[in-house]
Amino acid sequence: MTESNIILVGRKPVMNYVLACITLITGGAPKVGIKVRGQAISRAVDAVEIVRHRFVPDIKVEEVKIGTEQIASEEESPPKNVSTIEITLMK
Amino acid sequence: MTESNIILVGRKPVMNYVLACITLITGGAPKVGIKVRGQAISRAVDAVEIVRHRFVPDIKVEEVKIGTEQIASEEESPPKNVSTIEITLMK
Repeated sequence: MTESNIILVGRKPVMNYVLACITLITGGAPKVGIKVRGQAISRAVDAVEIVRHRFVPDIKVEEVKIGTEQIASEEESPPKNVSTIEITLMK
Repeated sequence: MTESNIILVGRKPVMNYVLACITLITGGAPKVGIKVRGQAISRAVDAVEIVRHRFVPDIKVEEVKIGTEQIASEEESPPKNVSTIEITLMK
């Protein structure tokens, strides 16, 4: 999967990510990765579920990986751990 | 997996679910399922990551499934879709 097929989910409305996903898929990308960390994780799952159920019924969830990233914080406080999720969709 | 090995994640502090998970695992459960829906999805991933990295390093994520459930709302409004995630841990 090339970097250009990866969607990073953040704080925008969920339909932004749904649209990004559909654009990649209908543009011929065989695989699309959705990456997200922290509180926005549920938004990424929402986006994938909307794509699957409402727009692209023949797409499959190839893999869901969960993980942890460390985020360096300001000053000398220790880095914070934040959960991540990466969902790979395949046509 | 029997029903008793499934933890439903809700609005309690994340360490409650971490503790529930560790209790099941150290009690001899070969598999533990973590189910959650909606906004609490990121909390479930947090709980799994804390269990894996801090308490039970030899546990593996066997499967992560995402899905959608319909929640009937009051009166005659249409049912609401809510995203779900189910993480299966295996020792």
